[in-house]
Amino acid sequence: MNRAELIHQIKSKRSFLCIGLDTDIKKIPTHLLELEDPIFEFNKQIIDATKDLCVAYKPNIAFYESMGVSGWNSLQKTLDYIPENIFTIADAKRGDIGNTSSMYARAFFENMNFDSVTVAPYMGSDSVTPFLEFKAKWAILLALTSNKGGLDFQKIKSENGKQLFEQVLETSQKWGTDENMMYVVGATRAEQLSEIRKIIPNHFLLVPGVGEQGGNVQDVAKYGMNADCGLLVNSSRGIIYASSDIDFAEKAREEAEKLQHKMDILLSEYGI
Amino acid sequence: MNRAELIHQIKSKRSFLCIGLDTDIKKIPTHLLELEDPIFEFNKQIIDATKDLCVAYKPNIAFYESMGVSGWNSLQKTLDYIPENIFTIADAKRGDIGNTSSMYARAFFENMNFDSVTVAPYMGSDSVTPFLEFKAKWAILLALTSNKGGLDFQKIKSENGKQLFEQVLETSQKWGTDENMMYVVGATRAEQLSEIRKIIPNHFLLVPGVGEQGGNVQDVAKYGMNADCGLLVNSSRGIIYASSDIDFAEKAREEAEKLQHKMDILLSEYGI
Repeated sequence: MNRAELIHQIKSKRSFLCIGLDTDIKKIPTHLLELEDPIFEFNKQIIDATKDLCVAYKPNIAFYESMGVSGWNSLQKTLDYIPENIFTIADAKRGDIGNTSSMYARAFFENMNFDSVTVAPYMGSDSVTPFLEFKAKWAILLALTSNKGGLDFQKIKSENGKQLFEQVLETSQKWGTDENMMYVVGATRAEQLSEIRKIIPNHFLLVPGVGEQGGNVQDVAKYGMNADCGLLVNSSRGIIYASSDIDFAEKAREEAEKLQHKMDILLSEYGI
Repeated sequence: MNRAELIHQIKSKRSFLCIGLDTDIKKIPTHLLELEDPIFEFNKQIIDATKDLCVAYKPNIAFYESMGVSGWNSLQKTLDYIPENIFTIADAKRGDIGNTSSMYARAFFENMNFDSVTVAPYMGSDSVTPFLEFKAKWAILLALTSNKGGLDFQKIKSENGKQLFEQVLETSQKWGTDENMMYVVGATRAEQLSEIRKIIPNHFLLVPGVGEQGGNVQDVAKYGMNADCGLLVNSSRGIIYASSDIDFAEKAREEAEKLQHKMDILLSEYGI
């Protein structure tokens, strides 16, 4: 999916919600466990219940990889089930030397047809650029993450006064454009978003950490929204595990609706 | 495999060679393509031809992941085929928030029974520590990589005068020990190894980049060896693609023998 289409989806659905499919066999309702593919069945019902409310789904690849071959099958079925007009993110945090990153890019973009992959920046240019060579596909580079350990290195200030995540934002501008790169910026660091917007005014940001991790969507919009919205705000556990009972999909919809309603208002407030 | 056993293997085999199984369907000899599982068949013959010469095998996970479900099957079969007294490294460069890194750790340590996984440090403590909670398993943290892009961020000097990779080495000391952590340091940066040894005198280092990428094993030993050897030097393409013909395994053995012979001499020179 290209940028224009993503913006169109945000405007027409009045939503910049991304739903994280962190589907854990130990957390899904027990009545699903009797079915042949409980992971896919869970995702299918979540998708059915929320697809009009969100513009993106983000399977967390670790959860599928940890299930072995059956997990990869569940992932592929999930991806095939997601409607074409919804942006898909392989949350994989990949990144390796050039020829190896090319293999990862092929795995997610060609074999599985994801629209985007999250990529770790530590290994620099040639670990990222192979993900930028596919038409209408995206690399979503880690910048400032919302976890505790995110502070260990990302905010180290260099001799030139810039923090590491700022260097990542600046240096990576040479590798791609706002048509094939986005950045991960955690919602728990919302106050940083206005500083980040000075460096990358146009890029889309993938913002996890709303809900369970304590971030809120109003702050994210206040500091991070641009004229095209420029945000994908992710919620995973707060939506998909809203109930652990037979009504899980219905409750997931209720949580997604609450967020979409807030997003609708915010989009209007900011003239989008 | 624990540290004592790894050191024992190095001493008895007179080798600190790691062979990278970057097995690419497009590069393996064409006569294998008729077989049911060409990737596994290639690995099997490489392992048969080299298992007395090396102490570790390092499948590059991207190469298997890019083959989809059949790739994961080939990987599992390969891992099951590697003799128990050889250290196994999942070169996966994983790393995510805590609960997600736990999933990756489970995938590689429990489902597949690898001895170790390479891990990217950008997301900090909670992205790494889940890999340290398994007995006789290892996280191998990226420090200074041998690729071109490795210079983009890893050598940025902070206000306190330390480069990023030095900060990674120092900070991560709080997370684990030399019994469950190793570090990736590229052979093309061999001159850096003596500086690195000042920070981590005891840890094992996984050193890629010998051969194809231009590093040499004498320099690595000169600057990086410690009293327990403390090195796993990896060669991938230089060994496994020494020939693209029916004699590939024999030629791979010849290349591995050359390196093992050099390592034998170096171990003796350094009194190990």
